[in-house]
Amino acid sequence: MVNIPTFENALEARRRIDSWIHLTPVLTSQYLNGVVGAELFFKCENFQKAGAFKTRGAANAVFGLSGASAARGVVTHSSGNHGASLAYAAARRGIPATVVMPDNAVRAKREAVRHYGGRIFECEPSASAREETARELAANSGGELVHPYNDARVIAGQATCAIEFLEQVPDLDTVIAPIGGGGLIAGTCLASRENATRVEVFAAEPELADDACRSLRAGRLVSVDSSGTIADGLRAPLMEMTWHFVSRHVRDVLTVGETEIVDAMKSMWQRMKVTAEPSSAVALAAVLKYRETFVGKSVGVIVTGGNSDLDNLPWNLR
Amino acid sequence: MVNIPTFENALEARRRIDSWIHLTPVLTSQYLNGVVGAELFFKCENFQKAGAFKTRGAANAVFGLSGASAARGVVTHSSGNHGASLAYAAARRGIPATVVMPDNAVRAKREAVRHYGGRIFECEPSASAREETARELAANSGGELVHPYNDARVIAGQATCAIEFLEQVPDLDTVIAPIGGGGLIAGTCLASRENATRVEVFAAEPELADDACRSLRAGRLVSVDSSGTIADGLRAPLMEMTWHFVSRHVRDVLTVGETEIVDAMKSMWQRMKVTAEPSSAVALAAVLKYRETFVGKSVGVIVTGGNSDLDNLPWNLR
Repeated sequence: MVNIPTFENALEARRRIDSWIHLTPVLTSQYLNGVVGAELFFKCENFQKAGAFKTRGAANAVFGLSGASAARGVVTHSSGNHGASLAYAAARRGIPATVVMPDNAVRAKREAVRHYGGRIFECEPSASAREETARELAANSGGELVHPYNDARVIAGQATCAIEFLEQVPDLDTVIAPIGGGGLIAGTCLASRENATRVEVFAAEPELADDACRSLRAGRLVSVDSSGTIADGLRAPLMEMTWHFVSRHVRDVLTVGETEIVDAMKSMWQRMKVTAEPSSAVALAAVLKYRETFVGKSVGVIVTGGNSDLDNLPWNLR
Repeated sequence: MVNIPTFENALEARRRIDSWIHLTPVLTSQYLNGVVGAELFFKCENFQKAGAFKTRGAANAVFGLSGASAARGVVTHSSGNHGASLAYAAARRGIPATVVMPDNAVRAKREAVRHYGGRIFECEPSASAREETARELAANSGGELVHPYNDARVIAGQATCAIEFLEQVPDLDTVIAPIGGGGLIAGTCLASRENATRVEVFAAEPELADDACRSLRAGRLVSVDSSGTIADGLRAPLMEMTWHFVSRHVRDVLTVGETEIVDAMKSMWQRMKVTAEPSSAVALAAVLKYRETFVGKSVGVIVTGGNSDLDNLPWNLR
């Protein structure tokens, strides 16, 4: 039996994390509105503490622990942002954080974990190796495993992003966010289905990591090899708790190619003046590609994070 | 006799341009606060319409013209941002804009002028060639010359940035902004000396374009060859109207080297997740270099623009 978070849990999360996160601004671009023929609103979680929305879920988990559990520290696995966010939250609470990271993680994300005082354990870049190593470390240390997304506390925390967004722009028709493991999308579903206007939720996914799209088509969890996408934050597979939300509440999963991701990323840097990371650009890439789905609507786009490697920008590599 | 703008002109400007500009957000960075030992607030004019604070002054000039003058169009010279901003404002008013640009202008800035429908006239990258070509074009076309900074309407418009900033963060001790021709600094002086707390104003300048620093030391306008700095928006020399403010109200002009500018720029991209252009980074570079001047204070930093060439980022060139 899966422990599915509720809207009430999301409201609790909001109160709990309030002093540890930023209320991030919403930006607009006339240029991009013109290109799409819609009103786009960008919720800039790249300005969030530790540079990504992940701090919401991580802070909710860390500050929800009892004193005795907290004292033993927290453990997770992460390609980067959840790890840095957990290390940030743990440092604020004064407890140790251990992060299992794939050895192909982006350098800036590794450095962020270290910057916040997190301990890094390297492992192979496979989902199973990460899960297993983190479970072992937690068992050996007695630390609390805070899964990056298959965790009710984390999903309730991520839901606070869409709750805030819908307060900032109350008349959104649609919210679109990238999907990897599905924590943000699950939280967005949680927030939006409780909203009076019943905003529709779209997920955007790299073609090279399209397990959510394939799962939705098949009606059951399907796994794929997703190590090839440049959107390093979206390589993680859906799991049962996030699949619960995706299968019930996501209107559609829209997939985009690698070139489309890089082009959208460059547009965001150029037009919106924000250093959105590749995973963040997947949602805009989908809006640009499936324009006809969004035309005439008021569309909320969650810009999930800003932790890019400035020395290896993708448009310099092709 | 120079026509010096007043605080009342700045308040008029604010009402006039209100619907043509963004109220830009103020961002903070715990990391940078820690490095400097001060509370830093960044006014993000890189998110301004057309990507820079220049839209404030340009819109004030364009929307202040009588119908008959406006119909003949506007003319200016600019290394980029003022040109794009004037083209933007002119397009909103439905009148033509002609921009004289040095042939070494950043590509993204050229494209922005064209994007807003401005006509570009190329000239040599010298201040005198620019001034002369623009004067001739205005004389021949009957268009209104809107100087990028030695213009009371433009200075009054730029003053709205600091007025807004001081409302957003009322207890600032200091405001620092980069200085090129001096329009933004002049406007900032205008806004701050009318402020109850009498905020002190610092200007930040590239060593390779240090005419403001030399002028302040000498007590009179001194000219230098400033074509070498990477801060392309700061190559223009002070002129009498901006010198009026700099000589009377600027606490000091702090100079920084090219490497310090690039390092500060990279920090802003990495830590603050904004694509601040090189000129924008000069102010943070000065705060980092002259830390002891700012320690313990509440410091407002104006991030002037975000129009960089993403294909030629300076840290990839060294």
